[in-house]
Amino acid sequence: MTQAVRLETTTLPTVDAHIYPRGGLDILSREEVARLKDASAGGLHDLLRRCALAVLTSGSTNDDPRAAQEMYPDFDIQVLQQDRGLRIELRNAPGMAFVDGAIIRGVAELLFATVRDLAYMAIELGPERAADLESSAGITDAVFGLLRNARLLHPVEPNLAVCWGGHSISRVEYEYTKLVGYELGLRGLDICTGCGPGAMKGPMKGANIAHAKQRQRRPRYIGITEPGIIAAESPNPIVNQLVIMPDIEKRLEAFVRIGHGIIVFPGGVGTAEEILYLLGLLLRDENAELPFPLILTGPVASAPYFEQIDRFIRLTLGDAAASRYEIIVGDPQAVARRMAAGIKRVREARIQNKDSFYFNWGLDIPLEFQQPFVPTHEAMAGLDLHHGRRPHELAADLRRAFSGIVAGNVKEEGMRRIEAFGPFQIRGDKDMMESLDALLRAFVEQRRMKIAGDYRPCYEVVT
Amino acid sequence: MTQAVRLETTTLPTVDAHIYPRGGLDILSREEVARLKDASAGGLHDLLRRCALAVLTSGSTNDDPRAAQEMYPDFDIQVLQQDRGLRIELRNAPGMAFVDGAIIRGVAELLFATVRDLAYMAIELGPERAADLESSAGITDAVFGLLRNARLLHPVEPNLAVCWGGHSISRVEYEYTKLVGYELGLRGLDICTGCGPGAMKGPMKGANIAHAKQRQRRPRYIGITEPGIIAAESPNPIVNQLVIMPDIEKRLEAFVRIGHGIIVFPGGVGTAEEILYLLGLLLRDENAELPFPLILTGPVASAPYFEQIDRFIRLTLGDAAASRYEIIVGDPQAVARRMAAGIKRVREARIQNKDSFYFNWGLDIPLEFQQPFVPTHEAMAGLDLHHGRRPHELAADLRRAFSGIVAGNVKEEGMRRIEAFGPFQIRGDKDMMESLDALLRAFVEQRRMKIAGDYRPCYEVVT
Amino acid sequence: MTQAVRLETTTLPTVDAHIYPRGGLDILSREEVARLKDASAGGLHDLLRRCALAVLTSGSTNDDPRAAQEMYPDFDIQVLQQDRGLRIELRNAPGMAFVDGAIIRGVAELLFATVRDLAYMAIELGPERAADLESSAGITDAVFGLLRNARLLHPVEPNLAVCWGGHSISRVEYEYTKLVGYELGLRGLDICTGCGPGAMKGPMKGANIAHAKQRQRRPRYIGITEPGIIAAESPNPIVNQLVIMPDIEKRLEAFVRIGHGIIVFPGGVGTAEEILYLLGLLLRDENAELPFPLILTGPVASAPYFEQIDRFIRLTLGDAAASRYEIIVGDPQAVARRMAAGIKRVREARIQNKDSFYFNWGLDIPLEFQQPFVPTHEAMAGLDLHHGRRPHELAADLRRAFSGIVAGNVKEEGMRRIEAFGPFQIRGDKDMMESLDALLRAFVEQRRMKIAGDYRPCYEVVT
Amino acid sequence: MTQAVRLETTTLPTVDAHIYPRGGLDILSREEVARLKDASAGGLHDLLRRCALAVLTSGSTNDDPRAAQEMYPDFDIQVLQQDRGLRIELRNAPGMAFVDGAIIRGVAELLFATVRDLAYMAIELGPERAADLESSAGITDAVFGLLRNARLLHPVEPNLAVCWGGHSISRVEYEYTKLVGYELGLRGLDICTGCGPGAMKGPMKGANIAHAKQRQRRPRYIGITEPGIIAAESPNPIVNQLVIMPDIEKRLEAFVRIGHGIIVFPGGVGTAEEILYLLGLLLRDENAELPFPLILTGPVASAPYFEQIDRFIRLTLGDAAASRYEIIVGDPQAVARRMAAGIKRVREARIQNKDSFYFNWGLDIPLEFQQPFVPTHEAMAGLDLHHGRRPHELAADLRRAFSGIVAGNVKEEGMRRIEAFGPFQIRGDKDMMESLDALLRAFVEQRRMKIAGDYRPCYEVVT
Repeated sequence: MTQAVRLETTTLPTVDAHIYPRGGLDILSREEVARLKDASAGGLHDLLRRCALAVLTSGSTNDDPRAAQEMYPDFDIQVLQQDRGLRIELRNAPGMAFVDGAIIRGVAELLFATVRDLAYMAIELGPERAADLESSAGITDAVFGLLRNARLLHPVEPNLAVCWGGHSISRVEYEYTKLVGYELGLRGLDICTGCGPGAMKGPMKGANIAHAKQRQRRPRYIGITEPGIIAAESPNPIVNQLVIMPDIEKRLEAFVRIGHGIIVFPGGVGTAEEILYLLGLLLRDENAELPFPLILTGPVASAPYFEQIDRFIRLTLGDAAASRYEIIVGDPQAVARRMAAGIKRVREARIQNKDSFYFNWGLDIPLEFQQPFVPTHEAMAGLDLHHGRRPHELAADLRRAFSGIVAGNVKEEGMRRIEAFGPFQIRGDKDMMESLDALLRAFVEQRRMKIAGDYRPCYEVVT
Repeated sequence: MTQAVRLETTTLPTVDAHIYPRGGLDILSREEVARLKDASAGGLHDLLRRCALAVLTSGSTNDDPRAAQEMYPDFDIQVLQQDRGLRIELRNAPGMAFVDGAIIRGVAELLFATVRDLAYMAIELGPERAADLESSAGITDAVFGLLRNARLLHPVEPNLAVCWGGHSISRVEYEYTKLVGYELGLRGLDICTGCGPGAMKGPMKGANIAHAKQRQRRPRYIGITEPGIIAAESPNPIVNQLVIMPDIEKRLEAFVRIGHGIIVFPGGVGTAEEILYLLGLLLRDENAELPFPLILTGPVASAPYFEQIDRFIRLTLGDAAASRYEIIVGDPQAVARRMAAGIKRVREARIQNKDSFYFNWGLDIPLEFQQPFVPTHEAMAGLDLHHGRRPHELAADLRRAFSGIVAGNVKEEGMRRIEAFGPFQIRGDKDMMESLDALLRAFVEQRRMKIAGDYRPCYEVVT
Repeated sequence: MTQAVRLETTTLPTVDAHIYPRGGLDILSREEVARLKDASAGGLHDLLRRCALAVLTSGSTNDDPRAAQEMYPDFDIQVLQQDRGLRIELRNAPGMAFVDGAIIRGVAELLFATVRDLAYMAIELGPERAADLESSAGITDAVFGLLRNARLLHPVEPNLAVCWGGHSISRVEYEYTKLVGYELGLRGLDICTGCGPGAMKGPMKGANIAHAKQRQRRPRYIGITEPGIIAAESPNPIVNQLVIMPDIEKRLEAFVRIGHGIIVFPGGVGTAEEILYLLGLLLRDENAELPFPLILTGPVASAPYFEQIDRFIRLTLGDAAASRYEIIVGDPQAVARRMAAGIKRVREARIQNKDSFYFNWGLDIPLEFQQPFVPTHEAMAGLDLHHGRRPHELAADLRRAFSGIVAGNVKEEGMRRIEAFGPFQIRGDKDMMESLDALLRAFVEQRRMKIAGDYRPCYEVVT
Repeated sequence: MTQAVRLETTTLPTVDAHIYPRGGLDILSREEVARLKDASAGGLHDLLRRCALAVLTSGSTNDDPRAAQEMYPDFDIQVLQQDRGLRIELRNAPGMAFVDGAIIRGVAELLFATVRDLAYMAIELGPERAADLESSAGITDAVFGLLRNARLLHPVEPNLAVCWGGHSISRVEYEYTKLVGYELGLRGLDICTGCGPGAMKGPMKGANIAHAKQRQRRPRYIGITEPGIIAAESPNPIVNQLVIMPDIEKRLEAFVRIGHGIIVFPGGVGTAEEILYLLGLLLRDENAELPFPLILTGPVASAPYFEQIDRFIRLTLGDAAASRYEIIVGDPQAVARRMAAGIKRVREARIQNKDSFYFNWGLDIPLEFQQPFVPTHEAMAGLDLHHGRRPHELAADLRRAFSGIVAGNVKEEGMRRIEAFGPFQIRGDKDMMESLDALLRAFVEQRRMKIAGDYRPCYEVVT
């Protein structure tokens, strides 16, 4: 159906419009409106403009983050608060969000969600409240507050399957994510993803058909994003609940706090990092007793991908680490059945632990997982990748190593550092480093990591 | 997504189950339940069994009407009425209607609709009430009563687009019907079809995505069928309101009474008959002032199909007849915009004529259109296919000629008659008959009419 | 609050208005509309006019049936069917049904219920269908059909307490009915009455406050009436579901088929007849095992009333008959607790007997209870009031004797007969007849039966 | 119906219970739950306990604030957060809040509202945020935040009539408030009061009947209270939306920000203060153009009360001040019609001023109206009650004078001050002071101000 969504024209039609929320749920204070209008340095207006544009080009096939900004240079958005509530004024907005001059309802809803979240960040997580965000509990409270304000926390039965995976995957992998989503939907599970295309869209599409067949009136297709990602991975048009978290770490925390289980489809380096983040948490003693269904799955053709991941994890974190996940190849029904069964165990544990269904308070996330890792040469030199370390600590450092190496290969900032200071010096056991290297080479070969020219390691192992 | 629906296994798993309606809306009297149980000659039980099986194999890819009956010989259904209301007991029911042992909700709903309609027919249109069905007004009242009982008549704004077309069409034609449905859905239109696959499913699939984007909470995907058709064209899984009419003529009347406009996609001889039925009505003086949007459309590749139809109509019924429809090729947006505009005119006319939005009382349908045509040699000899007749009368006879010729070529009963008594003797102008012949040959060539061996006319023209 | 409802003015303001149903649920066919318009002998228009006027004066304090007709001689009503559905046109309608020119929503709903029921009677129970009403099963089916069409049959948990009692009771009795209604409402029970004032209004008022406190969103206040009663006992303004049954016997059947238990407050002869009707049913062998909570209750001051009734029943039908009811004096909480417990047993029995929750199919009602009794001298002479008869047969004849004696004393037709032919000759045991006489005298003394002049028996006992 | 609510027993039955919110809407963070549990000095537990007890004795006829505390000394409440959400544990709770062991739903809802508001105060208005409350805009934002969190701000059409008046008024006055509420309800207006008995309950009771007649599905009966008042004026059982504001000034601001018009019934000195507070705002130049319907009304017997008030206002603030209100005596329909018309003008002004329907941002409230006035001798001596001052400033000082004199007469703290330091020295024009004195004496005579012994002025006029 994607072709239907496209409105690719050479003239790039734009529309001016006033938009009111339908249910009229969202109400802002004068102060919140003022912050959204403020175009000054500390102001939010530019951020709002960028996020809104991503939402308005939702479903666009163009993968390039900056494209929308360049294609609609005169786009602007203003937020007003009057009579029946919030009112959004758009100027030179992408015509693709409109049908015969009227905005598509779903797009309008996502737009109001964007305004709501940015307003919340401005006031509740603004500079006046910086002190609240210095402790682990404070950050968790901030994540909770933002999700509650977005009305994502409902005391319904546990049924939320988070799906991770690449945004540009092969056709056969994409079709497989739809089949898995379909089987999840038939079993009454709702879907939460990073809200972009590929593995973030397929499960929602499949579930959508299944939910219609099961006459599920209010299925949830939750998209969790953050300002740096939303432009590149504009919400797919199935998403009906969007939340914008302040940064990548809070986004990851949101996934693991509200999801009742996680399915990982094939993806690139980002997906690998997410797996290491999650294992870093699940291997902690504090979380040892916590049921947390984690299934790695893909079509038969993608079996080698998961074999490599599995091999790497076993070598680095030990076979015990592998007991925290299950790999299922080419069997969507089995994936859905296992996930449903796993979530049933989560439900029982929550009742037993007197924990809530809608927010995984019981999961221990230490401060270091909540704070960003900046891959400087110093930071990279501080990593400690040796056998014998406690698995969850090693997982955390592996994730950082991974993150740094990726940055050194493909991110502007990282590549500049390598150019300036030479390869990172990483302290680690040789077999571990070789395994990591093999994994990265495989990603490049499978075109899951895009690299200009040949792959050349940006690091040296110091033993 | 269709592959996901399939559950083709070699073992043909079956399920025994008790089913209760979810909303508990449907309530039967003891007498109605008794009739549904009655397996005697006049009883309904066998009819119920056949229709239920069609619904339970909904979404099956098998096109053969008798297949389901043969594949599930031990299937049985019983209807009970107790505590919270209706209860259906299934034995050896097709496993494909179930997920992990629980029936798919949408399938259950269609099953209850089937029970509801057959119970209504048994009592309200049963032999005791035969006299009510002898007049044109009486038949219209019966159609009204059945649709009202099925809760299809709501005083909502006119927005129902009926889609006609073949159940086995080409891939490109099918994709086109989805695109048209998507554009209709974006504009808030609901879809009504004959409820099978092909052109009856595509528009619903497309509209389903669009309705999700427009956050339409209660979209209607109405399927209108009748006992002779439902087995061959089992309801597609998007249908959320199913009604079983007693016979083909009442089904056609249901389409034109509740639809606010009709879109005709490419199809076979059945579709051609439907066009002639509708023109036969619209060309009557009594209906001359009645707005009734009628759009013939298909992808660019199907243009020749509509050119032939158009040529045939102009030659037989005159150019004026062509003013009652519009042909649009390869432009889903234009189709949806024209239909939306046409329905707006229907709305205005209903208000002006003090007619209801939900039932087209104003459309004059004479008794001869409400009664079945049985193509005997006598009946065929009585047709009068000459230029100079009033167009609507000629349209009615053309439809009958068409129906008879099709029967003579492909239907068992008709072929036997031809074998026994020789070709039909049809009185008609030569050019008209040649044009009809050309049309049929084209259908055969385009594989829209399936024939064993070469096409051989089953009639002779008597001038 | 009753004063607030009154709009007593000397000028009797009237209003002309068009009314549309709010939810747009009710849809009529052309034929049904035509019957409602037909003012000829067999037509319904006059009946519709009278019932509509009763509804429009709902809440009026005037007790006189004919008053409304005389006060609004120019009132007229027309029913149309157009665009969004039913439309009612009122001319010279009582101003008390309107607020600043707009009709009170609740009144409009009752008006649409009236139209719906009369239309149903006209078509489904009209002269063409007379044969259907000749058997006991046929009459029960008609009652079922009318209640189903009125959307009174929902497969919800059993919770419907029917309240019977007088329409003109003392202030302390009225306050007591409110307290009982309040306690019923607190326990989640809905209320069904004959829909007039007094004991038919009090329980609804009490329950309304309790339902508000319990945040019951859709409480049911069902009023069951019939054309001969509605004018005299115009629906009280709390009633939110009104159904008009064709005659008194079908109204009684409706009460005992949809109610899950019955509470009898003090009342006049009508109430006594109702008790005998119900005992006549419950004492049948066929109904012996059927739980049917029946509670006679009133304030302490009304204790003598129930003592007399109890004495009369024990003397005539035997002590065993008294086991079918319970008398509770001056304890609203106990009444509500007993009724709730009794309904729980009804629920269990329905499940065990595979009977529906919403219609008491299991209760045996013989044809003689479904047909009207006309108290001619012949019919009265045919009664057989002797000890030794089977209790349920005796109860039936007692009810008839009662009915005839009341007619002979207070009804125009009955009084004329007595004048013409002398007192009824009733065959019966002396003590039984004396007891009956004592009961009637007590009613007169307690002003529960209104008589001009002294009470003089209109019958003679033949032994 | 009030007697039904009473469960006055000598044994004072209590109940232990677990309560879950029905809709499951309210969700707290771990931090919020912790604060509610904290029984230390700064902790909220004692406050929660007191407010909860007031809610659990809702509808009690006992007027004494401390009574409930003394009658249920062992009552305790704990708040937990688990599985489906909030869970409240009650120990030794008043039996009157329960029916057969199950809590009355409405009471449970008010209990959850209490928890919600105290949790909000603890975190969002807690000591960490004290700086936010130092400016006028900051306080208004806090009021907005609390009301938004209580879900009282909906962008619906303006329809909220605030009713002020005494909690212990005469029977005829109480009946009159019911009639006014009934007429307001018939016209679709919702009711907001201080949530206690008397003039705070009557309008809600009347509106409740009218809303039922008008089939208003979700009428709002908003009660606004604060911790110091809730114990003395426990929410009446009609209230379905309760909000607890932090103090009296924020409560007053809540009334005038969310109400679209105000009706003042007879009351005591508190009511007079409220009138002066409102006039002090409405007479400001900043608010001169703002429509704000203000109606003083009571039964005919209460006419003298409003004449005195009117005379006092005209004398002190000038005749112009009287143009801001309207006095209607003994005509509930006229009150409702005028209020409905006034709210229509409010609606138009909000649209014109681009202000929201649900929060009166446009009303200017200076900081001095938002901060408490403590009537010390110094503060009283600082008042300036002379003719010639600007009316709104004079109104503010009059309100303070009033407040101080009342304190000196009836409040413990105030009486102690007078005893210690002698009468207040108030600077003011003689006629103004005499008029104030006359008003107070009249209140005492009409038993609207309760005083032990004779009334003796607690102030001296310094000219």
